Amino acid sequence: MFLERGYDAASMEDLARASGLTKSSLYHHVSGKEQLLRLAVNRALDALDGVFAQEARQEDSAVHRLERVLRRTTGVLLAELPYVTLLLRLRGNTEVEREALERRRSFDARLAAFVQDAMAAGEIRSDVDPRLVTRLLFGMVNSVVEWYRPAPPGATDGTDVGHGSRDDEIVHAVVELALDGLHAQRD
Amino acid sequence: MFLERGYDAASMEDLARASGLTKSSLYHHVSGKEQLLRLAVNRALDALDGVFAQEARQEDSAVHRLERVLRRTTGVLLAELPYVTLLLRLRGNTEVEREALERRRSFDARLAAFVQDAMAAGEIRSDVDPRLVTRLLFGMVNSVVEWYRPAPPGATDGTDVGHGSRDDEIVHAVVELALDGLHAQRD
Repeated sequence: MFLERGYDAASMEDLARASGLTKSSLYHHVSGKEQLLRLAVNRALDALDGVFAQEARQEDSAVHRLERVLRRTTGVLLAELPYVTLLLRLRGNTEVEREALERRRSFDARLAAFVQDAMAAGEIRSDVDPRLVTRLLFGMVNSVVEWYRPAPPGATDGTDVGHGSRDDEIVHAVVELALDGLHAQRD
Repeated sequence: MFLERGYDAASMEDLARASGLTKSSLYHHVSGKEQLLRLAVNRALDALDGVFAQEARQEDSAVHRLERVLRRTTGVLLAELPYVTLLLRLRGNTEVEREALERRRSFDARLAAFVQDAMAAGEIRSDVDPRLVTRLLFGMVNSVVEWYRPAPPGATDGTDVGHGSRDDEIVHAVVELALDGLHAQRD
């Protein structure tokens, strides 16, 4: 409902109807739409937070951590599509939104740190600004919400990208483009 | 004004005030806000159209055309930032918006054709779906509107990405990431 009507326009009445409850039963469960928004964006934020927290503890090479972060954040986006989409559309008009945006910004800083570690280790090229790279990488990953539609259950052909292309195919393409680019195949 | 308030919310009154005209003088120049929207998005669409039309006529290798299309479409985005941003935010609620979205979709098809040509020529890897690659490439390019702010006139240091990073640095990073990825430096 927040995605369909926009957070500001969606009323508790709309939300109650969509959840099959009366407005007063809905108020029995949540204090208002702010709380519903918090629950929804936290679902995306907690999943992404888990990825960064786990990878920060890995004693692996920096480039492998970077690769896994890309793979796993793309996986979270695909698995939690409506929640990540909501997160990416927040404008920061309310306290809940501002808190969420702050947590979201922390991911930029953490991805930038992984990029910098990999550069410092000489594992990736260092002729590009690490913060610029970070923004372009997240830009590519996040753009998937614009066109991805999960395949309907039982669909097996991957002929129509976004309407049947498999999640692992998308994750593979993101990681390959980011790490090796289109030229690649040189080793 | 369309970016600030949203197209639907912006009135001819707002637009007149922003342009320093009375509402009746503004109506003397344009028939209404639909025409202003058309003029604005056509500025972006015509520039992008020019890039694809010129590159389609080049008798160069497919991968070089692809590289130049990426370089030049990113250049158009940076040079025509508000107009491209407006284009990317269209939802298709009016006839003008639907026509613009149709033209925009034609760029996806034309970029996909360049990607396919380069794959067919064996100039880029073909282990990824060309339409998926097209979407990710445009996703990366278009994401620049989310954070890019032109450097103020006279600024020369490139220390703050998006607030002073030079246009050529951004174009370089997009092209390098897309073609060679982060690993690179292997030849």
